[in-house]
This record gives sequence, C-alpha cells and structure tokens, in this order.
Amino acid sequence: MYHYKAPLKDIQFLLHDVLGYQHLTTCYDEDLLSEELCNSILEECAKFTETVLSPLNHIGDIHGATLENNQVTTAPGFKEAYRQFVEAGWNGLISSPEFGGQGLPILLSAATEEMWHAANMSFTLCPLLTRGAIEAIEYAANSSLKETFLPNMISGKWTGTMNLTEPQAGSDLSAIKTKAIKSGDCYKIIGQKIYITYGDHDLSENIIHLVLARLPDAPPGIKGISLFIVPKYLVNEDGSVGEKNDINTVSLEHKLGIHASPTCVLSYGDQGGATGYLVGEENRGIEIMFIMMNAARFSVGVQGFAIAEMAYQAALAYAQERKQGIPIGADTSLPILHHADVAQSLLNLKLSINACRHLSYYAAKLLDLRRSSEVSERNNAAELSDLLTPIVKGFCTEIGNQVCYQSIQIFGGMGFIEETGVAQYFRDARITTIYEGTTGIQANDLLGRKILRDKGNVLNKLFMEIDSTLAVARNKNMNKDVINILENALSASKDVSHHLINHDENYYKYSHANNLLMLMGWLVTGWLSLNEMLVCEDKRINVALDQSFFNNKLKGLEYYIIHNLPRCVALKETIKHNQILNHPNIISELLTVS
Amino acid sequence: MYHYKAPLKDIQFLLHDVLGYQHLTTCYDEDLLSEELCNSILEECAKFTETVLSPLNHIGDIHGATLENNQVTTAPGFKEAYRQFVEAGWNGLISSPEFGGQGLPILLSAATEEMWHAANMSFTLCPLLTRGAIEAIEYAANSSLKETFLPNMISGKWTGTMNLTEPQAGSDLSAIKTKAIKSGDCYKIIGQKIYITYGDHDLSENIIHLVLARLPDAPPGIKGISLFIVPKYLVNEDGSVGEKNDINTVSLEHKLGIHASPTCVLSYGDQGGATGYLVGEENRGIEIMFIMMNAARFSVGVQGFAIAEMAYQAALAYAQERKQGIPIGADTSLPILHHADVAQSLLNLKLSINACRHLSYYAAKLLDLRRSSEVSERNNAAELSDLLTPIVKGFCTEIGNQVCYQSIQIFGGMGFIEETGVAQYFRDARITTIYEGTTGIQANDLLGRKILRDKGNVLNKLFMEIDSTLAVARNKNMNKDVINILENALSASKDVSHHLINHDENYYKYSHANNLLMLMGWLVTGWLSLNEMLVCEDKRINVALDQSFFNNKLKGLEYYIIHNLPRCVALKETIKHNQILNHPNIISELLTVS
Repeated sequence: MYHYKAPLKDIQFLLHDVLGYQHLTTCYDEDLLSEELCNSILEECAKFTETVLSPLNHIGDIHGATLENNQVTTAPGFKEAYRQFVEAGWNGLISSPEFGGQGLPILLSAATEEMWHAANMSFTLCPLLTRGAIEAIEYAANSSLKETFLPNMISGKWTGTMNLTEPQAGSDLSAIKTKAIKSGDCYKIIGQKIYITYGDHDLSENIIHLVLARLPDAPPGIKGISLFIVPKYLVNEDGSVGEKNDINTVSLEHKLGIHASPTCVLSYGDQGGATGYLVGEENRGIEIMFIMMNAARFSVGVQGFAIAEMAYQAALAYAQERKQGIPIGADTSLPILHHADVAQSLLNLKLSINACRHLSYYAAKLLDLRRSSEVSERNNAAELSDLLTPIVKGFCTEIGNQVCYQSIQIFGGMGFIEETGVAQYFRDARITTIYEGTTGIQANDLLGRKILRDKGNVLNKLFMEIDSTLAVARNKNMNKDVINILENALSASKDVSHHLINHDENYYKYSHANNLLMLMGWLVTGWLSLNEMLVCEDKRINVALDQSFFNNKLKGLEYYIIHNLPRCVALKETIKHNQILNHPNIISELLTVS
Repeated sequence: MYHYKAPLKDIQFLLHDVLGYQHLTTCYDEDLLSEELCNSILEECAKFTETVLSPLNHIGDIHGATLENNQVTTAPGFKEAYRQFVEAGWNGLISSPEFGGQGLPILLSAATEEMWHAANMSFTLCPLLTRGAIEAIEYAANSSLKETFLPNMISGKWTGTMNLTEPQAGSDLSAIKTKAIKSGDCYKIIGQKIYITYGDHDLSENIIHLVLARLPDAPPGIKGISLFIVPKYLVNEDGSVGEKNDINTVSLEHKLGIHASPTCVLSYGDQGGATGYLVGEENRGIEIMFIMMNAARFSVGVQGFAIAEMAYQAALAYAQERKQGIPIGADTSLPILHHADVAQSLLNLKLSINACRHLSYYAAKLLDLRRSSEVSERNNAAELSDLLTPIVKGFCTEIGNQVCYQSIQIFGGMGFIEETGVAQYFRDARITTIYEGTTGIQANDLLGRKILRDKGNVLNKLFMEIDSTLAVARNKNMNKDVINILENALSASKDVSHHLINHDENYYKYSHANNLLMLMGWLVTGWLSLNEMLVCEDKRINVALDQSFFNNKLKGLEYYIIHNLPRCVALKETIKHNQILNHPNIISELLTVS
C-alpha cells in the first residue's frame, strides 16, 4: 500500500513566490497573512494527512460504510480521525470568526483541501459538504438560525449536507418535487432525496441537511424552489441536541468508488413531515444553493488533481522499485522509471497535476480577491472567477481521471489487482467529473453563461492578460518554442471564441461545448505556466536560493507547454470545421445501432 | 441492466462492401467465401451472443470465479454457456480442418470475436486463450503432440492457457526462472506462474497449459527459454483423460474487473515436477510464444472496441430514455440525447468504435492475406500486418477505454452506481491496455522493430497507399475539409517519422513512442475512413440500395476525420519540439515529490 507525502515545497512555491499570498492585504488583516503562520499550518496539515488520513484510505475502501437499523456506521478508524480533525481546528479554517471560524484565506485553505483529498477523498467529502452548508447559512439565513447552527457546524461538532437530487431531478433541479408545508414558525418537509453524501453517519452529534423543496403555492420550475435547514436531530432551546427529526436513511448506494463515503437515499416525512427552517426568502432557494454549489465545484476541482497526485506518487514509487528489462543506454536491468516511455508518461502526470494545482490555487486567490476592499479589484476578480470556475471543475477533474488511468498503466498487471491500491484512486476519481455538475454541465455553463452571454467581454480581458504575459516573456528572451506554441494557442482561442460568439446556430455551438472547455483549460494552464516560468527565471539568478529547484521547475513548465498546448490549435480546427451537428434532427439516425 | 445487440449491418457492410470478403480467393476455397454462408454464421453468432452470453455478463461480475479445494468454479451459467458454445462449433472456426476445425477466414472470425467480447469479455477470454494455444501447437509441435491435443482443443472439449508471467518476469520474459528438467521422453516442470487467465476452471474436461521454462543448461536470457505443453490431467494412450498432473492453483487474483475470468497463480511441481512435453526445439520457446502473442494482441485489440460497443449501446439506451432539462430548440423536457453536448459525445463514441472496427477487420484481412497463394500479396500483407499489429492492440484498447469512461459520463450519477452495469465495462476494459503487452510495449515495438529497424521502408509504402486514396478522393470531389485534414495528418506523419528515423538520440525518440503510436492510430483510421467514404459514395448513387444508410455513414465518417485527425498535427508539434527528455539522467530529479 502506498502512503501519501504532501508536496509541501511545490505548494509553498506556488502560494508565496507565484501567487503572493502575503500580499492579499486588501482582503485580510496583515497578521493573518504571515508566511510563517501559513507555512506552519501547511506543515501541520501535511503531518495530519500523512499520519492520520492516508493510512485509513484503503481501509475505508475495503470496509465501506454500512447501514443498520436506520443508522450509518463509517469504516473503522474514521470516527477517531474525525475527532482529531475537529480538535485540531481544521473544520473552521476559512469560516467567519464571528461564529468561531479562523477567517483565513481561501488560497491557504485550497492547499489544505488538496492534502486532505489526496490522502483520503472519502473522508474529506464530509467537511467539504459541511463547508458548503456553512457558506449557504452564512450567506442567507437569519441571525437566529445562524446562531443556532453555525458555531457547531464551524467547529465540526455537527456536519452538513446538500440535498438537491431526486430520482427525476438531477442536472435539472427545476423538476424537484419534495414538498414543504408551512407549520407555525417552521415547515414540514416531505419527499425523497437521493445521492446524499454523508446523508447519515456516526462521526458527529448532529447532521444539518440543507434541503431544496417546493411550497404548495410555489411557481413551477426553478423559480419555485426554496431552501430549508432540516437537522437530523432537532435542537433544543438551550442549543443541545433534542429528539430525532422525521428523516429515514432508506439505503446506501453500492458505488464504483469512494466506498467509505456513505451515499444515502433519505426519506423525509414518513411520519407526517420533517421539521425544517426556511433559509432566506421563499422561492429563492436555487440562488442560495448556487452559492454552495460554486464553492463545491471549486472544491471538486481541487479533488480532481489531489487524488491524481496520490495516484502519481504511487506510480512513481512503483516505477522506482520495479525492475524490468534493460533500458536504452543501460547495460543491466533497472527500475522501469529508466525506460524512456515510462519516464515521459510519469513526467506528463506530474506536470499535469502541477498545472491543475496552479489553476486551482489561482482560482482560490480570485475567490479571496472577491472580498477585496478595492472595488475594481473585487469586480475584476469576480468576473474572472465566474469564468474560471467551470474550467477548474471540468478541466482538473478530467485531467485527474486521465492521471489515475495512466497511473494504473505504470503498474502494468499489478495495477489491475485491487490489493495494490492504485485501482482505488482510479475508481474514486471517476465520480469527480460527475457530481456537482458533470463536465458537460460545466462546459455549457462556460459557453452559455460565461462567454456567449456577455459576448466574450470577460474572456477578452483574460486574452489581454495572456498577451501581456507573452510580451514580458518575449522581452526576457524566454524559450522561443514555448512562446510560439502559447501564441498559437492564444490565437486559436481568440479565433474560435470569436467564431462561436458570431455563429447563429445554437445547436452547433453547444455541440462543441466540451471541446471549448478543454481548449480553455489548456490555454489557461499554459498561460499560468508561463507566469510560473517568469518567477523561476527571476529566482534562479539568485545564488542564495536552491537553483536546481528553479531550474527543474523551468524545464518541467517548458515541457508542459510544448507537450500540451499544440492541442489548442487542433481543437480550433475541429470546432471550426466540424459543423455537421448543426441541427438536433440529424443525430438520432446517426446514433442508431444497426 | 443493458443487453447487447450485435451491430450486424455495420459489420456486414465492412466485411462485404468495404473489405471484399468474397474476394479472398487467393487464400481460401471459393465455397468458404460465399456471402450467404458468412452472413448466416454472423446471424447465428449474433443470436448466440445476444441470448446466451450477454445475459450472463453482469452475473459473472457479481459472482466472479471462486477457488475451493484446489478447484476453480466459474460463475453460475458459465458452464452451460460454454457447453452451448462448444456444441455450436464456435471454438474451431478458423482452425485447421485436418484436426476438426472449419478453416474459415480470420476476417469472419474477427467479427464473431467482436460479438463474443462485447457480450461477455470474461467468458470469451477462455476461447481466446485456447485459440492462441492451438496456434502455437499447430505451428511448432510434432505430429504426435498435435494428434494428442489439437482435436480436443479445436472442438473445445479441452481449453488452453498461456503461462508466461512470473513475479519477476512480466514485460521482460528473459527473467523467467521456471525450470524444466528432462525426464525420459518428457520434462519435469517446476516453478510458479502468475496472471494465468483461466488457469483453472470447471468448463472443460482438461486444461492444456503452454508453459515457458528454462532447461538447466540453457543460455541465459531470452534465448534460453523453451515452450512446453503441460496438461492439467495427463492424457492416456487411448486419448482419454488420466491422472492429475503436479499443478496446484495457489490463489485467484482479486481484480478491478473481468471478475468472471479466473486469474490464477499456478504452482508447478510441488510434488516433484509436473509432466511437460517440449513444443518445437529446445530454447526456441520465445519465437513460438510470439506466434500466440501476436494472435492474442490482435484479439485484445478487438476486445478493446468490442467492450466499448457494449458500453456505447448502454449509454445510448440511457440517453434515449432519461429525460432531463429542455434542450436547445425544444420547448419541453426531452431525453438527454437531444442536448447538443450529449449528442456530440455519443456520436464521438459510436464513430470511434466504428473506426477501430474497420482498423481491426482490415488487420484481420491482412492476416488472411499472409496465407495468399500469390507471393507478392503474401509478402506485402505480412509486412503491413507486422506494422499494424501494435497499432491495433494499442490504439483500439486506448480508445476503447476512453469510450467506456465517456459512457459512464453519459449516465451521470447513475453511471457511478454498480447496479447500473456500465461501471463494469469501465472496470473490465481497463485490463485491455495492459495484458498481452502494455500500450508502452506496443509503442516501443512499433517505433523500434517496425519503423526504425527498416528505416521506415514499410511505413513509406503505407504512406504511398494513403496518398493514392487521397488522389482518388480528390478526383471524386469528396468533402474538401476532409481531404485537407487527412492530407495535413499525412504530412505530419511523414515529417515526424522522417525526423525520428534520422535523429541520433535514442532516449528522446523512445520517449515519444506512445505519441507516435496514437498519431499512427489516428492517421490509419482516418485513411480507412476515407476508403469507406469512397465505397459509400459509389453505393449511394444506386437507388436500389438503402440510400439513407450510406448517406448517414458518409456523414459519420466525415465527422470522424474532421473531429479527430487534427490531433496528428498537434502530436507532430509535440514530438518535434519536445526534446527536453533527451537523456536518462534528466528524469529522476524532475519526478521527485518535493
């Protein structure tokens, strides 16, 4: 079994040298931003993930969560690990200090999330969901609800869930049927919810469900859905946990992966109605849910490359120990790492993860800057962050799956044997491109709401940023192949977005949504890589620093751009020339099995 | 659960209209080649796979094979299905009539193999391995061994296995340690073999293991390995099954997929030595094993797209029934098939499978032509077939995995739930890029043995063939985008192969072996698609035929080329510019987790 080692040096380099963590002074008090505090948190996190979370990961896969007598039991060790997680204060890292949180930057939190997910994705889903619920309550609930629920949720004493999906309402939430009927100060909730992550478990004293439901007189569709807090146990006047609410755990799903994360079917109101409390205004539930959802989408993007990091580490360790055949240039059998094709494959994996990490951390910094005290900084960050969220979610999870796939390949036959452990990452990762909106949903969001709606206005600002980075790189005489390839990728992206914005056939445009998302993912990670190269270029002339670290980084970043960015031009060709799918009618006959 | 429907019309179109099955008269007697006989075999095969093999596929996944008291029991229904398989005569389709086979073309057999694998990959591994063993015995064993073993193996009364791998000897067979000691007319075999597919089971009366082992005085390495027949039960003088040989099934592997296929650890000679019979000459085992291996590599290529076909059929069925959201241009909720991004995704899957099918069938035809009575036809086929085998194995299995991955995506959350069944295809398919030589092994074979060794001589002949197809297409005024894109892909391939052949840094060259394999896969499938388009172009002007079938084919083939072939130019850019990995020493420091 392979254990996780947090890539602290890579993480710290990105945070401090590339993204300027300490300079987020328009968003946070300076004393929260010290490099020392940041690094000590990261080091503690590394220790916790390496020693507590990682050793439980395979155990969780084997044992899974179990349901008996309407109560879910988590895998051995999970309860104790959660206790330690809560006691160390990890749960409230970015939450509001008003209710006991530490109010630290999202950028720092992104790095801790990466480590948690890499070490144990199934475990980390619980705090991930709790955080989403906290954010929705912070954003929209009245002060009485906040005081009742937030302190215990931020400390981690209670956990949270998101209850969106119903059998007929998955990607399309307008089809939600769960009912909410007013009853005094609160509501009675009746209906069935599926795919509820940590919908029941034994880790915490209480579980706070955030549930989408429909009032009897609500308008049809998406504008008639309200959001409710529905706790597993009702909360007494004094804040203590009271009697059980009318919620049943009907069953647990038998899933391809993340076995230790209980995915529940929950039934509300079998005894007449579960007690719920309205969050925000009636019929405005979807807006609030999207607050949670955007945070969750970002986190799932992090999850995508985090689990890939773990898979890569396992593959690297195996490639360093498994001897097989005599590599080119050697005269004896060496570890397979020394075969050129294996080396290239491993390098691709590492650099792809690196690029996704940079993209996600950059997006996290933008989430921080949305709180800037400077209006223009705040607005720019908000625009760009909205544009990038579907790319973070879609691109990082697709790449993450490719990395996990390829990590099995490095193991050869051993990768297909479950005991090796690498198959688990491959299975676990498979959900990341699906939940919190499939890649297709992200791609449609990117194309429709983020590019077509403002006719590419924000996108063009991003293109201008990339242009200026390229100008700096040209002035500094950086690697010409790198600059050419990124320039070509940028031209291709400008060309194709202009083409799509001005095309008048919607069906054709959306048929290429997935291609556009991947193209943008390559372009943005290529651009961020060039930024990172510029930092390395400055650093490596400083002899006081570890020059080999920066030299290697530079080589790797050049490699990433040259290896991957030529795809952008190919994707442009594909999108522009492939207009065969220009009308819904054409598709059915082409797809028939004959 | 989704059931398989054989795509008979697509298969028959390729066999008869595109590849000219009836015209293989230099290889087979004309009466074996009638369209009527061929179609009736295909129809029977479709019926058998749809009604017998497909319904057992998910049952096999759930039950798996089990080991108790040194005897493996297959999943419920498998024994009866195998009995029917044998009784219908499926096992001996292409084997020599001298020993009871039907001597039919490999091209026809490829189509039946596709259906078997699509319906039940775990089941079909048993006849796949048996066929490999039959071929090795037909090729190299003496007439007494042939008479003893072939009739029962060809009828399917006995099955066969390939025993290559040992813990220290996977891709590198030179490390084999299993011993063979001469003892009278036969040999005593002592050692442990792992990953033995159907190494034990209850389907047949006897199991004939083909085992690689080393004689005491053998030269070291690959040139000191011999091949032995080692039956599970010794065979009496009268041909009946006698006492048990000294072979133990130590354990079954717990695998990610193909649960119904027992993957055994076999121990030979725990009681002093298992009785084995030398096949061919001493120390020539690897050559003979490569006969089996090449056949098996071709079959695994077929497996790659066959399981993808099943995954596609499931995804299509789900997309036709699952309503979610209102697609562009519609005013009510429709099945998700009508969303443009889902439609595009499904179309990509179908056309990718189609392209792999054409590639594999074309390669099967070349295997037939290797037996041609005309020398030049025979030699040309042999050369091209050697070049294409690693592409068939590598490309079709990589694409097959992508299709299975994407099929889960179409299902959304349901795809991650095991009961849906589509996760099984994803898990089962994962082995196809690994066994019988990983994609990396195929890529090294393609680059080293098939391209560099003859300085691109055979490859250039292929390029000339593609040039002439392009000339025909230009004359017929076929779609200009298609022609341009294929021309660019061809230039890129010429450019990059010339570049690699003339480069003097081996490590750099082999670091791009995988990229080259995929580039060649896209190019060759693009070329074959253009060939197919030319056939459709001729057919669709014949009003007596089903014009919509040919029109749709044409649209799909255009789509495939425009959608996929631009990658060839991107891969050329990557290979030519990415020379960072030019020496083994650079890699270790770049890969370290820091």
